[in-house]
Amino acid sequence: METVREEFTQYIHQLQDNICSTLEAADGKSKFHEDRWQRTEGGGGITRIISSGNSIEKGGVNTSTVHGTVTPQIKQQLKTEGHRFFACGISLVIHPLNPMVPTVHANFRYFELYDEKENVIDLWFGGGADLTPYYLQEEDAIHFHSTFKNACEPFGNELYPRFKKQCDDYFVNVHRGHECRGIGGIFYDYIRPDQKNTIDHWMRFSQSNGDSFIPSYLPIVERRKDLHYTEKEKYWQEIRRGRYVEFNLLHDRGTLFGLKSNGRTESILMSLPPRARFDYADTPLPGSREEKLIQVLRNPKQWC
Amino acid sequence: METVREEFTQYIHQLQDNICSTLEAADGKSKFHEDRWQRTEGGGGITRIISSGNSIEKGGVNTSTVHGTVTPQIKQQLKTEGHRFFACGISLVIHPLNPMVPTVHANFRYFELYDEKENVIDLWFGGGADLTPYYLQEEDAIHFHSTFKNACEPFGNELYPRFKKQCDDYFVNVHRGHECRGIGGIFYDYIRPDQKNTIDHWMRFSQSNGDSFIPSYLPIVERRKDLHYTEKEKYWQEIRRGRYVEFNLLHDRGTLFGLKSNGRTESILMSLPPRARFDYADTPLPGSREEKLIQVLRNPKQWC
Repeated sequence: METVREEFTQYIHQLQDNICSTLEAADGKSKFHEDRWQRTEGGGGITRIISSGNSIEKGGVNTSTVHGTVTPQIKQQLKTEGHRFFACGISLVIHPLNPMVPTVHANFRYFELYDEKENVIDLWFGGGADLTPYYLQEEDAIHFHSTFKNACEPFGNELYPRFKKQCDDYFVNVHRGHECRGIGGIFYDYIRPDQKNTIDHWMRFSQSNGDSFIPSYLPIVERRKDLHYTEKEKYWQEIRRGRYVEFNLLHDRGTLFGLKSNGRTESILMSLPPRARFDYADTPLPGSREEKLIQVLRNPKQWC
Repeated sequence: METVREEFTQYIHQLQDNICSTLEAADGKSKFHEDRWQRTEGGGGITRIISSGNSIEKGGVNTSTVHGTVTPQIKQQLKTEGHRFFACGISLVIHPLNPMVPTVHANFRYFELYDEKENVIDLWFGGGADLTPYYLQEEDAIHFHSTFKNACEPFGNELYPRFKKQCDDYFVNVHRGHECRGIGGIFYDYIRPDQKNTIDHWMRFSQSNGDSFIPSYLPIVERRKDLHYTEKEKYWQEIRRGRYVEFNLLHDRGTLFGLKSNGRTESILMSLPPRARFDYADTPLPGSREEKLIQVLRNPKQWC
């Protein structure tokens, strides 16, 4: 019989294949470049990078399956005990060329902890997806959120509102006066089975969300990728990408943990945008579309 | 009689004026824009930013003079005790337009700690200057290091080698396989008076280094600012500026402390380059000038 870790590992690789082939077909120009890597301490990953496409300026769809001894650093990060660990996940970021198309990030992962006799003593699921528009289209925000709301609902009505809030609370540039990175989505972590919900329940929940990535994002790309944009709008995209860099390098737990625990730097930092600007005290004009975006980033909305 | 903090405060403001007027004259196009700000907890600063110049793409020359209660966060950062603190300093970063001109950073600061009766119970000087070339010119590296070596020497022959090594050890992107940000310079901190050297000795030492900034950097700008460069070379500059962003946001103690202690974000992040690129697994061609730079960044050299 297949173990949970085997099933999840198989799922993320299949999802990686599906997402990459769908994005390649939609882009119509660039193909993903694959790097397979090994981790000295145990395990490895498959990094797939795309760049200079028709609609994708830079993107990465990575999987990794790693295992090893629980170091003091891992212990501190996870706030839990254990002798050895297993972790696998898929992580993706797509930075489109056209500033009318939002950047997207998604991540679905599974974790197990073992005692000295290799018994599983703890396990949990984590993941989420969030959208970072440069020019806000309400229709896109509603579509993205609705897709994940629909993906969550069969597993509990309370899940989408809870994970939507966790997403709004997590992706925040606190050093920028509590400015969110984007318009959110869902974010969950430490989801453990209990007397009410089995491992299988959360496995199906994870897969329901993973399967929703393409339907949540692709229609937005198709709608916006051929819209006209000006140099000024591209400039604004690069300014906002600067904020994306700030969040990922200053606040993102996954990025900081990965770099500090001697993860594969190039695979971790594939999330950074192709090009970013850092202007002093950039402030959008009152009433502009740029200012409207900032207002929503400062005051997260209920989209559905 | 003037106190040490008064003398240092006066010095950094005068140095700020000198550096700004000299850089403006050398640039010949852009002028510094000034923002004066107050800190709720006590003190404030003068931020001066220049952008889109003939030779300077973006730069900042900032001073700040702040005081307040020693919070647990300050205590942890400083690894010392005290009831109240005073800190003042000048901090500057110049990002030139031409990739043949190096980026430069310098910082000179003074710190006092007080007990509950406002007695000074500890004080120290800190500072340094470091150069980040995109295309290495040995002549420039030698000139920059020699200038600070000459500035240090009257105050002790051991100082330049010690502070040169501290600089090489500090400005390192450890997550990039121990790659230095640039070709170094000097870096010192917690320089306290003792039975051998008085406060006045270290005050003159600080000023000798501060006064050396313009002579260390301006001749390099003058020599290189009109050199021809290609789009490919500008692209490489932006890749390297990506590494500058990574160092400042992931590793720089001053930046992280400033942001975490509710400092003025815009003044702190003026250090970020105007534009940066983040390519996946960018690797210079063997034997190229780009690769030669990387070799030196991986193996810091003795320049004088």
